[in-house]
Amino acid sequence: MAPNPTLSPPTTTTPTLTLSGARIALAAAETHALEIGVPMNIAIVDSSLHLLAFTRMDNAKLTSINIALDKAFTAAGHRISTSSYRENVWPGGVAFGINNTNSGRFCTIGGGVPILDEEGKILGAIGCSTGTPVQDEEVASKGRDAVLTIMREERWVVGEERAKADERSRKRKRVNGIGEPSQHVDIEEIVA
Amino acid sequence: MAPNPTLSPPTTTTPTLTLSGARIALAAAETHALEIGVPMNIAIVDSSLHLLAFTRMDNAKLTSINIALDKAFTAAGHRISTSSYRENVWPGGVAFGINNTNSGRFCTIGGGVPILDEEGKILGAIGCSTGTPVQDEEVASKGRDAVLTIMREERWVVGEERAKADERSRKRKRVNGIGEPSQHVDIEEIVA
Amino acid sequence: MAPNPTLSPPTTTTPTLTLSGARIALAAAETHALEIGVPMNIAIVDSSLHLLAFTRMDNAKLTSINIALDKAFTAAGHRISTSSYRENVWPGGVAFGINNTNSGRFCTIGGGVPILDEEGKILGAIGCSTGTPVQDEEVASKGRDAVLTIMREERWVVGEERAKADERSRKRKRVNGIGEPSQHVDIEEIVA
Amino acid sequence: MAPNPTLSPPTTTTPTLTLSGARIALAAAETHALEIGVPMNIAIVDSSLHLLAFTRMDNAKLTSINIALDKAFTAAGHRISTSSYRENVWPGGVAFGINNTNSGRFCTIGGGVPILDEEGKILGAIGCSTGTPVQDEEVASKGRDAVLTIMREERWVVGEERAKADERSRKRKRVNGIGEPSQHVDIEEIVA
Repeated sequence: MAPNPTLSPPTTTTPTLTLSGARIALAAAETHALEIGVPMNIAIVDSSLHLLAFTRMDNAKLTSINIALDKAFTAAGHRISTSSYRENVWPGGVAFGINNTNSGRFCTIGGGVPILDEEGKILGAIGCSTGTPVQDEEVASKGRDAVLTIMREERWVVGEERAKADERSRKRKRVNGIGEPSQHVDIEEIVA
Repeated sequence: MAPNPTLSPPTTTTPTLTLSGARIALAAAETHALEIGVPMNIAIVDSSLHLLAFTRMDNAKLTSINIALDKAFTAAGHRISTSSYRENVWPGGVAFGINNTNSGRFCTIGGGVPILDEEGKILGAIGCSTGTPVQDEEVASKGRDAVLTIMREERWVVGEERAKADERSRKRKRVNGIGEPSQHVDIEEIVA
Repeated sequence: MAPNPTLSPPTTTTPTLTLSGARIALAAAETHALEIGVPMNIAIVDSSLHLLAFTRMDNAKLTSINIALDKAFTAAGHRISTSSYRENVWPGGVAFGINNTNSGRFCTIGGGVPILDEEGKILGAIGCSTGTPVQDEEVASKGRDAVLTIMREERWVVGEERAKADERSRKRKRVNGIGEPSQHVDIEEIVA
Repeated sequence: MAPNPTLSPPTTTTPTLTLSGARIALAAAETHALEIGVPMNIAIVDSSLHLLAFTRMDNAKLTSINIALDKAFTAAGHRISTSSYRENVWPGGVAFGINNTNSGRFCTIGGGVPILDEEGKILGAIGCSTGTPVQDEEVASKGRDAVLTIMREERWVVGEERAKADERSRKRKRVNGIGEPSQHVDIEEIVA
């Protein structure tokens, strides 16, 4: 039954990453890329899937630019890490052929990591490329973790409000256990 | 007669912008965009025409993302500001139709500004979009000017070498007059 | 922490193949194609991935033109032979789906061979097509080897400087063993 | 009435440029480009419109690569110089919109010159780009003229047959007047 239009608002607001959040992710990802010695192409998109920020580190591969952009696009669009698909997209898998969708942009190579808020809503994603997919995903994860940490600890709050922000942050850690951001999503639930 | 391959080296080096240079341009462009109150999409490519850095400022137009990318691509590829073409690409102009080339990426809307070194060699370009083309070009020019200033004054040189760098910088200013970077290219000379 | 832009130069120089180098590769590849009796499409790109030279030998396949272009593009972009990917890009492999990236230009069929300088930096690549991938790669390799030999022996140096060039060339051979150019890269290290 | 199939052969042969002919054109075009000091991208296609040879001279513009390819494609396809269209393709002209055809490859910027045989049949075309369209067409014309001269004088004939070839060549010049190849085609006759 169609919803009664008088009970469903015609507009809403959607959470999304800002340029500020993107920069946090970019800096953390870049730092880790330097640590492991693999120069990366790093792309950040927001919840609308559109490009928010991009960085090509010195000596990153030129054909990896487009791959990083596609990984971010895909991770934000489908809301799971691009490494998750595995057998689901190989011949025999239920989503075989998905790589051709979205004008060939749907990238199922590891390195694209979604950024979800506390309620599980998509904020955006980060896509990395030039290393092995494992390295790419590792760097992207560092970027996502940095944003989540800033969010959880409300780091942008300063001055008088800081004490209340610290208290809210402590409550979140008690609820979630030791404060590691964990956003692994089971592929059986979300495919295609 | 074709050049003798045994007398011409098989390799050479080409100058190009680095991520560090791109960041300088990005920061200056963004600052000016904030000053004029127009949030911009800012894209930087290097001399290979490939994307080096990108920033979408809060509230910049989503359909301007691609335009900024194309402006940077075009400005670096043809080595002149994208605002230069004017009547040359309108009906009646000698380059009419150029907008369809390069898979439609050749953008002749103002906002793309090339970055050339002292010898006139292309280093890369910066493309901005969301404002009027005049505003876009103004912001892009600030970005280019910042990089040229850093280059002319060798700002990355610190410590003991700083004195020699200052001296070389003073000589450049004496040669070029008051040290404002000016890279206007006459469109009659370079089209298509 | 992001790198300090004031301490890192805003520009650099990147090595690249010249038209002269491309011609050397083209001639050697063509000669070998004639020797094995397989007419080839031969494409050469430089380190920017852009086309530098192309030759379609008499009776080469028309649908192989684009394949040769893509092989060169891919080999220069990812810096390894296009034959290297094998199981990494088949179903089950970590880079499955990479063929859809870069607007479908990422070609993992053998025949694309990168040209790297002594320091391992990418100079460009040569892509061949019409024969079997093994034949294509063989012809492309001859082209790459010819350029490397010219570089190692500094053949473009003539006249008075020739003696010093010979001496430098002898030193290179002593360091590297018998002077066969070998640029095999382990695929486990560089994927996606 | 459909033709009687027993009177029309099911196959035929079409004249076309060879790689050898393409090289003649390439060398002459390149020489002239050096003479006028404008580094060119030079593309040659045969009568099937497919790429036969390509050269990017040192310092030619990267965004001009694609333009040269499109000019050659268009000149061979429509069999007239790409500079011919003028008002026919501007708003108000009978062929306005033609630039969007052929996936945007139909290029009406000067610099593409067809190569026609004595009977007016298309053999291929040469497309040049980086200079002004006038310079581009001038360089392309030199390439075409070189091929036509070789054809008219049957330069590939050597040894005993040379005398007869010279005689045929002299007859051609007497018929055509002073031996300048002239292939200007009136645009009123051939459009769209």
